[in-house]
Amino acid sequence: MLALEEVAVDLVKGEHRSSDHRARSPLAKVPVLELDDGRYLGETRAICSYLEGLYPEPNLMGDSFEERAFVEMTDRRVELYLFGGIMNCVRHTHPGLAPLEQPQFEDFGRSQGEKVREVARWLDEELGRQPFVAGERFTIADITAFCAIEFARGLMRFRPGAEGMANLQDWRDRIAERPSAHAGG
Amino acid sequence: MLALEEVAVDLVKGEHRSSDHRARSPLAKVPVLELDDGRYLGETRAICSYLEGLYPEPNLMGDSFEERAFVEMTDRRVELYLFGGIMNCVRHTHPGLAPLEQPQFEDFGRSQGEKVREVARWLDEELGRQPFVAGERFTIADITAFCAIEFARGLMRFRPGAEGMANLQDWRDRIAERPSAHAGG
Repeated sequence: MLALEEVAVDLVKGEHRSSDHRARSPLAKVPVLELDDGRYLGETRAICSYLEGLYPEPNLMGDSFEERAFVEMTDRRVELYLFGGIMNCVRHTHPGLAPLEQPQFEDFGRSQGEKVREVARWLDEELGRQPFVAGERFTIADITAFCAIEFARGLMRFRPGAEGMANLQDWRDRIAERPSAHAGG
Repeated sequence: MLALEEVAVDLVKGEHRSSDHRARSPLAKVPVLELDDGRYLGETRAICSYLEGLYPEPNLMGDSFEERAFVEMTDRRVELYLFGGIMNCVRHTHPGLAPLEQPQFEDFGRSQGEKVREVARWLDEELGRQPFVAGERFTIADITAFCAIEFARGLMRFRPGAEGMANLQDWRDRIAERPSAHAGG
């Protein structure tokens, strides 16, 4: 069982830009994993790769190199085009995100909010053919997609079901029932 | 030795948005690798993971799971914050990219062009401490960074040396002398 001590970094107060945090993360990003040997590992997906190396079961990132490549493909599509578009929309249009995104470009953000619907419709079609984002079983791509959809739910009021994406809504509701979906409280 | 048949997709003519290409790549992206069993693998980094699985030597993505995680961390920093910022700048400010990015938001693009300098300065500092982007040896992160810098050279007229980033310039010039840097012609 993995036990991690959590240290909060207050983004709204700009603590991520402090010299203390930059010593852990030179581009002022969160999260960062501090290893026992004192090194700092940043970038969420790289931290997941490291943790999956330490705890290979249950496998979430692909068993063979071939499956790993296909899971990575899908995880990137979800992260770069779905989550990335949602982040761009929220960071450039939401007043609450102004401390994190300066300057905000509202027209750009609104345009990203429209484009992200195209990506969500692709995911909705995928989920009409298969039970999970990357295929027949639960993987990291489901985690990435769930975080993206929950972020869009909270900050863009995005409800897939209300926009005709019934498969995406069903999948979201199924994932939300998993115990790990509530782990953060 | 790997031999791949190349099939060109003309982005300026919009061929990537054709139904033929969408059958290979549902979000209309390039490149895509067609496998012998007829499946299509998209996303450049996922294709690299697959090819490294087939041809493990020379290793470019990390030997142990631990090294793989640190290479992935650095590769992501280069891809998401350096290359991503360069792409945003060029796609939103360059008239030649208008067929690929509609609508273009010029103010956003110019702002991204400024922010990308901060990331380039981080990379310049790293390269003052170590010979390659991810450390002591050549990895995929050098390939990603070289593509980013060459893209910025061509389309943003970015010259690291002329902007006080001597380490980044020296590294770029060293990488440009490698035979593989000319492989594309």
